Amino acid sequence: MLVDTSHPGNIGAVARAMKNMGILELVLVKPREFPHPEATARASGADDVLQRARVVETLAEAVADCGLVLATTARTREQYFRVIEPREAAGRIIEEARAGSGAVAVVFGTERFGLSNEHLLAAHALLRIPANPDYESLNIAMAAQLIAYEIRMAWHTPGTGTVATREAPLATPAQMDMFFTHLEEVMHEADFRDRTQSGTHLMARIRRMFNRAELDANEVNILRGILSAVQNRRRRAGEGK
Amino acid sequence: MLVDTSHPGNIGAVARAMKNMGILELVLVKPREFPHPEATARASGADDVLQRARVVETLAEAVADCGLVLATTARTREQYFRVIEPREAAGRIIEEARAGSGAVAVVFGTERFGLSNEHLLAAHALLRIPANPDYESLNIAMAAQLIAYEIRMAWHTPGTGTVATREAPLATPAQMDMFFTHLEEVMHEADFRDRTQSGTHLMARIRRMFNRAELDANEVNILRGILSAVQNRRRRAGEGK
Repeated sequence: MLVDTSHPGNIGAVARAMKNMGILELVLVKPREFPHPEATARASGADDVLQRARVVETLAEAVADCGLVLATTARTREQYFRVIEPREAAGRIIEEARAGSGAVAVVFGTERFGLSNEHLLAAHALLRIPANPDYESLNIAMAAQLIAYEIRMAWHTPGTGTVATREAPLATPAQMDMFFTHLEEVMHEADFRDRTQSGTHLMARIRRMFNRAELDANEVNILRGILSAVQNRRRRAGEGK
Repeated sequence: MLVDTSHPGNIGAVARAMKNMGILELVLVKPREFPHPEATARASGADDVLQRARVVETLAEAVADCGLVLATTARTREQYFRVIEPREAAGRIIEEARAGSGAVAVVFGTERFGLSNEHLLAAHALLRIPANPDYESLNIAMAAQLIAYEIRMAWHTPGTGTVATREAPLATPAQMDMFFTHLEEVMHEADFRDRTQSGTHLMARIRRMFNRAELDANEVNILRGILSAVQNRRRRAGEGK
């Protein structure tokens, strides 16, 4: 819910930020200009969020049927409010949604002055984004983006997709063992001596570094191909002697 | 680090987003227009971040002396990269900062196309923001805002201790480049031919696997020592002919 928003561009940017995180219900309380071409431009594909936006005259009307109401604030307030950060707020919001306990409102004030003390009276808690104390005031769409993101994070923590990008299964420990034996053989043939540490220590370290790479089976084959090529080359050179 | 940014307004918005979270070091790689009044307008008080921004010609130049390099991406990539989300990334970034192991780079591509596959070759991991699968592409400044916010949040959280187990700082991208050149030289001298892929493709893949390992500077020295030993051995064998 955006209250008394001055710049229509910000309304568009908020719509985009919301939709990026899968949140589609926008309420505009007395926007100065709406609809507006700048709002549509900044929405950049999230025009559906703008089109279905509910426009009302007062915040009281906007929150009437809601459950939890959170009011964003950039400033410390003197009054005794519960103040929570976006992460905790998101957890609460999801909990509310799961319990089916009515729509949760996250309310943003004007770009310059935020919400008035009167507006805050509808809030169960204040939502405050941690920021640089020397430069605290976030753009309103940025604030909406952060909160929407935290809501999405709280909703589900999906896998990162790392595993899906692998071409082959992770190399098995047995395959890795064969690779390390092969590498050690090449190091030995090449008379490699590490000045700083013993052989066992060195191989353990080499294992750790390759294990961190989480090589897949094809990658181990490539590395072993390189090792074999090095050995063949040397053997051919040896025969030439 | 912003690569090939098209809209100066976005540069300003990123500067503001950074400063809001207390991050002040901006690097611009070949910005289309900079400085620019629109950048200054959108920075809205974060002009100091713009003024001290470093402007360079190539990403390689930008990251040369960095430690950890994270490349943002909106798309799933086909290659095998480690992919992390902003929260995990932020934890890593703070851990690196606490260990004093060189500047961490968070790299953003163009507004329309993101980073090229070539840009990704310097990356230890990809940074991907979880989003609505039907509408995934965040505005670049929004993405920067989320990541900067997570970095600020992580600042207050204890780390996992991974970084502390490193003996030396992460190898810089410049050191990694020298290592890859050396390895390629040895592969060439050994007449290594990969049956399945072209040379460039293969080297890109090898870069990805070693980057995933996040080698420290000493480890790179060990690997280069092995390569040198292989070369010396071969040269001695050659002289014996």
